[in-house]
Amino acid sequence: MEQRIALLGCGNVGKALIGILNRKGRHLEGAYGVRMRLVYVGDPRVGAAADSQGLDPGAVLEMLDRGALPEAFRGDVSEVVKSMGATVVADATPTDLRTGEPGLSNARGALSSGAHFVTTSKGPLAVAARELEEMARERGLKFLYEGAVMSGTPLISLIRNGLAGCSISRIEGILNGTTNYMLTRMAQGLSYPEALEEAQDLGYAEADPTADVEGFDPAVKLCILAWVAFRREIGVDQVDRTGISGLTGEQVERAARSGRSVKLVASLWTQGESIMAQVKPQELEADHPLHGIGGAVNAATIWTDHLGKVTVSGPGAGRDETAQALLTDIISIGRD
Amino acid sequence: MEQRIALLGCGNVGKALIGILNRKGRHLEGAYGVRMRLVYVGDPRVGAAADSQGLDPGAVLEMLDRGALPEAFRGDVSEVVKSMGATVVADATPTDLRTGEPGLSNARGALSSGAHFVTTSKGPLAVAARELEEMARERGLKFLYEGAVMSGTPLISLIRNGLAGCSISRIEGILNGTTNYMLTRMAQGLSYPEALEEAQDLGYAEADPTADVEGFDPAVKLCILAWVAFRREIGVDQVDRTGISGLTGEQVERAARSGRSVKLVASLWTQGESIMAQVKPQELEADHPLHGIGGAVNAATIWTDHLGKVTVSGPGAGRDETAQALLTDIISIGRD
Repeated sequence: MEQRIALLGCGNVGKALIGILNRKGRHLEGAYGVRMRLVYVGDPRVGAAADSQGLDPGAVLEMLDRGALPEAFRGDVSEVVKSMGATVVADATPTDLRTGEPGLSNARGALSSGAHFVTTSKGPLAVAARELEEMARERGLKFLYEGAVMSGTPLISLIRNGLAGCSISRIEGILNGTTNYMLTRMAQGLSYPEALEEAQDLGYAEADPTADVEGFDPAVKLCILAWVAFRREIGVDQVDRTGISGLTGEQVERAARSGRSVKLVASLWTQGESIMAQVKPQELEADHPLHGIGGAVNAATIWTDHLGKVTVSGPGAGRDETAQALLTDIISIGRD
Repeated sequence: MEQRIALLGCGNVGKALIGILNRKGRHLEGAYGVRMRLVYVGDPRVGAAADSQGLDPGAVLEMLDRGALPEAFRGDVSEVVKSMGATVVADATPTDLRTGEPGLSNARGALSSGAHFVTTSKGPLAVAARELEEMARERGLKFLYEGAVMSGTPLISLIRNGLAGCSISRIEGILNGTTNYMLTRMAQGLSYPEALEEAQDLGYAEADPTADVEGFDPAVKLCILAWVAFRREIGVDQVDRTGISGLTGEQVERAARSGRSVKLVASLWTQGESIMAQVKPQELEADHPLHGIGGAVNAATIWTDHLGKVTVSGPGAGRDETAQALLTDIISIGRD
């Protein structure tokens, strides 16, 4: 079948998706029976390109490299979907965790006009996961967001598909690569300021590292996982949150020398009828599944009734990695 | 939607599936929109039970505990499917890797009469993966086998669904829990004979441990993964295979003392147009994703173009664990 894709957002992730479609479009059609036709690309910063017959992804990339697309950006997603006959809107816009915008309006516009919606943005999930999922379900559409947690490492697919039928009692994750990189380097002898500076130099940490080092980023991801795994909406203020800024390199190195590793563990578990959520540095023993997860890698361990513990690890960020999440979501909608 | 299940095989795995349906049937319907109706249960050793209105799983379990089912076992799966209106045949019969039977005939019988086929048996895959998958595809049916590798740990779902769109270049796995348990104990100071005896006492190893310790079991699993990941059929004789029986406890312990771990690694990779497959003990450095996988746990690392390395680990055997694989396969056929 054909997926007619309207892509919103031409930053690193959007460009990476266009690049993948350019390199692998024909292969994807053969392997999954899904014909990927890019009908619209738009970003308020660079304009838009549209062709209901299908854009040439290579030509779009060249235009983006030159800095601009030929048409005016259109803010009304419903209008884009209808005029271009888009079957799926792929949202790679920046995240605003407070308002959920622009992803939230993009989602409502896509779903209300009959298109599936796939996103890498945490924003719409943080503020309206249930609303959007119900909106999609009522219309027989898909609302998918593999890239919102651990980029393309398929944690959400694992929970939804691979573990279907299991009951989950607990999830523990290393959901922030920046702090895991810092802790790995502190275990090797760096001080906290040295580790932070190195993470900033490598582009892992922002100039203002608060969202990472104070644990806001993994806390938001826990809220998304609470919805995925337990169908419960919790707010980030309900997460008991401690970051890593109170740790010294000495503490982390001392734990490493005694065979333990300090990790910023994001945990979610059931307690009676409640869902408990916590982000906190913990010293993990050598037999903990997350003990050996080093560097900017992300990982999550899921406790289940039928399988005991299952762990998945992989990249937690990156342009191709996050674009891959959009791709697997699009393929899952329409494959053979 | 409703899935009308004909279950073949009432050993530990079959009974575990009936137990799960008994405990969680109503929950599964609510969570996935799939109504599980068990219409037939049969095993040549204990007879059969059939009710086109749906058997009571609890009553079937009680009959099995008393040692027999009320009706005669029926060998003709097509006849069972047609007379009971089964929509899916769940196969939990023993594996014969040489003939693929009885799973192979069960698969052909189910698919030719219009029922989906899900199995935990490596046999049908080892001898006829392509034939059965094409047979299913032509008829618009599913042929699924999550339980054939790593029991219910969803490695196959990860490759098929979670990594859809990625190109895979290499897989390395610890696909045999018995030998991984033995190697873990040898690293702790046991000799090879001591580790083998302990694994036999715990029920991990058979009285004749050849299939495990000589690497036949992971070699067959590599053949299945070659089909899943690369759409290539290779025979077990094409796997370059070395088991662990040539290792001493001393060797394994010495590696552990120097920070490496000896693992029986099953590897699959592309080389030009060829698929290479190898089972071989290897000393893994501390930064290898499989380094810390201890005890009877299984794990696999998958090298991809878009995501780099992704690793999944979990149980590789067990009755509930393997029944879970059948369950997730059945849910994936007919969920909302």
